[in-house]
Amino acid sequence: MNTSPDVSPAPWPAAQVLTTLAVYLRDRQAEAEHLHPRFAAAARVLEEFVLGGGKRIRPTFAWWGWRGAGGDMRGPDADAVLRAVSALELLQACALVHDDLIDDSVVRRGSPTVHETFAAEHTARGWRGDAGRFGAAAAVLLGDVALAWADDMFADAGLSSEALARAREPWRTMRTEMLAGQYLDAASQAAEDESAETAIRIDQLKTAAYTVAGPLHFGAAIAGTDPDLVAGYRAFGADIGVAFQLRDDLLGVFGDPAVTGKPAGDDLREGKRTLLLALGLGKADHDHRAADAATLRAAIGRADLGVPELTEVRRLLVDLGALDAVEARISELTASALATLESCHVAEPASAQLASLAITATQRSS
Amino acid sequence: MNTSPDVSPAPWPAAQVLTTLAVYLRDRQAEAEHLHPRFAAAARVLEEFVLGGGKRIRPTFAWWGWRGAGGDMRGPDADAVLRAVSALELLQACALVHDDLIDDSVVRRGSPTVHETFAAEHTARGWRGDAGRFGAAAAVLLGDVALAWADDMFADAGLSSEALARAREPWRTMRTEMLAGQYLDAASQAAEDESAETAIRIDQLKTAAYTVAGPLHFGAAIAGTDPDLVAGYRAFGADIGVAFQLRDDLLGVFGDPAVTGKPAGDDLREGKRTLLLALGLGKADHDHRAADAATLRAAIGRADLGVPELTEVRRLLVDLGALDAVEARISELTASALATLESCHVAEPASAQLASLAITATQRSS
Repeated sequence: MNTSPDVSPAPWPAAQVLTTLAVYLRDRQAEAEHLHPRFAAAARVLEEFVLGGGKRIRPTFAWWGWRGAGGDMRGPDADAVLRAVSALELLQACALVHDDLIDDSVVRRGSPTVHETFAAEHTARGWRGDAGRFGAAAAVLLGDVALAWADDMFADAGLSSEALARAREPWRTMRTEMLAGQYLDAASQAAEDESAETAIRIDQLKTAAYTVAGPLHFGAAIAGTDPDLVAGYRAFGADIGVAFQLRDDLLGVFGDPAVTGKPAGDDLREGKRTLLLALGLGKADHDHRAADAATLRAAIGRADLGVPELTEVRRLLVDLGALDAVEARISELTASALATLESCHVAEPASAQLASLAITATQRSS
Repeated sequence: MNTSPDVSPAPWPAAQVLTTLAVYLRDRQAEAEHLHPRFAAAARVLEEFVLGGGKRIRPTFAWWGWRGAGGDMRGPDADAVLRAVSALELLQACALVHDDLIDDSVVRRGSPTVHETFAAEHTARGWRGDAGRFGAAAAVLLGDVALAWADDMFADAGLSSEALARAREPWRTMRTEMLAGQYLDAASQAAEDESAETAIRIDQLKTAAYTVAGPLHFGAAIAGTDPDLVAGYRAFGADIGVAFQLRDDLLGVFGDPAVTGKPAGDDLREGKRTLLLALGLGKADHDHRAADAATLRAAIGRADLGVPELTEVRRLLVDLGALDAVEARISELTASALATLESCHVAEPASAQLASLAITATQRSS
């Protein structure tokens, strides 16, 4: 590598991840062209989606997980490790493309979602049948392509066969945990499961395990086999991951669309079950505030939720103390994570970078 | 292994594949239970789908590809190879679950499709929102689980790191070719692409490459590195794969639902572009039989196609010579494949078994 992730102003190796993904996808694009120009055109939409944005948070945690376990960024393995950790972005591309389809979201990162892009192409070309159904078909298949290519990018990264074998366990676990979390999310929305327990379990699977603990473990496993470090990383990741998701939930209700890139209140419209809502509903029920509880319940999953209703939901969540309770929980989890980190033997500068990431990820506004 | 695939009456190691899948999925099911009981219940639907049926054709070709390349079924690697080739059934489960969703098929192997199963559960439990949307969400995610687990089952099969590395290329190629074929299928249906060229390209990708040539190559790569044998396998597979798909297309229009397990004429209702239709339409246009061409075009993609229309389509395809032309093409391809096989150095009994498979796969009635 020509540029060190360590000397970038922010603690994110995002530029290197982007370059690595661009090189990898250029090769896959050439292969797609060889299969059929029409497939290549579809794969280009996926390529643009992957290269077009995102915080690269999973590769970043994985990278620092590797560095903190003694990985040498000037050593001969660094490029292979960068490819392996970048594969997490293709996994995430599958998760997002399929999640947007399931939630019928129209906008992601300020642009039309993948299924919307293909539906629009269908309409523009005056094709036969239902444009929405074609958009859905394309999004299902391109999400599959992203998932298959994620596996390829990891397996063909150029890791030693020992490192590859060590990293298999966290890789296997991360993918299943992510999918279990997505399924649980969909099923609990359908079942109108209001419990705080389910909301936290979903956060543990979708964010703590898949976004932070899994990538850290993955990076550590590539570097070697230190069970204490892995246990420390997983404890740190469990705390920070849940805190990260709680911040996401707050932004989903209270965030500024100009900063988040998503319409305000979309989580509510989708009927997403969050700890924020569980605490608000629990408090309203406990205090016999039936009208307030009814207002909240009516807003969850209401596709045409407007600004007045959203404003009222925000006011109620503040008034019921749910916002403060979630903020307090984020602070506790962050403090616990930082204490865990301090007690682990994480090599510098990874320790400082992970501490900084912990704060950035849980205090962000987008 | 206690039972040899070689001594079974049919040339299919289907029983061993089933047992291998059952053992693998039992372990994954335990892991799913640990993640969340609700996810485990969903994963059980996938497990039942995988274990519930199918011709196990891809593992069978891969197994004989390995045996024909010198793989020793009494050697220490045989169990690992059986696991690796069985992983192809999980890949196929992803393809079928997502394909059924895309085509909105309600029946597969005589049972409700996966998205239908989850939609019915949603309705039975009186859950919130649209049952169809929940069914679709569950099918998207369970197809993803099947794809991720396919990769896991192959990577963790216990192959030597050399065999694993050799088998990566055909594994990588098969998955992308399958998805490219599925996408091309969806896009050419939407674009009403009537060309025989596109129909054949889809067959090459979805069936020849993914179903026959890819699995044979995969098996050969596990056994060793003989480029001549791989080239022979791929030529054999390209012929047999297209012939297999042409047989499938004939069954899709002329097949007996009691034998195929699929409603008669479903391919027509879905608007599937096949060589059979391309030849029928081409002949009708060439002979200026405008009314017949219009009848055929009106039937393609007509969701409410009834028995009288189906009967008329069948009569026209016979009358236009399309049925005979496709049967002739199947015979030519099978003869070409058998000639290729004879010129290759394929170890016995694999050579005889592959010849038998070539005939079975292209002359079947289900």
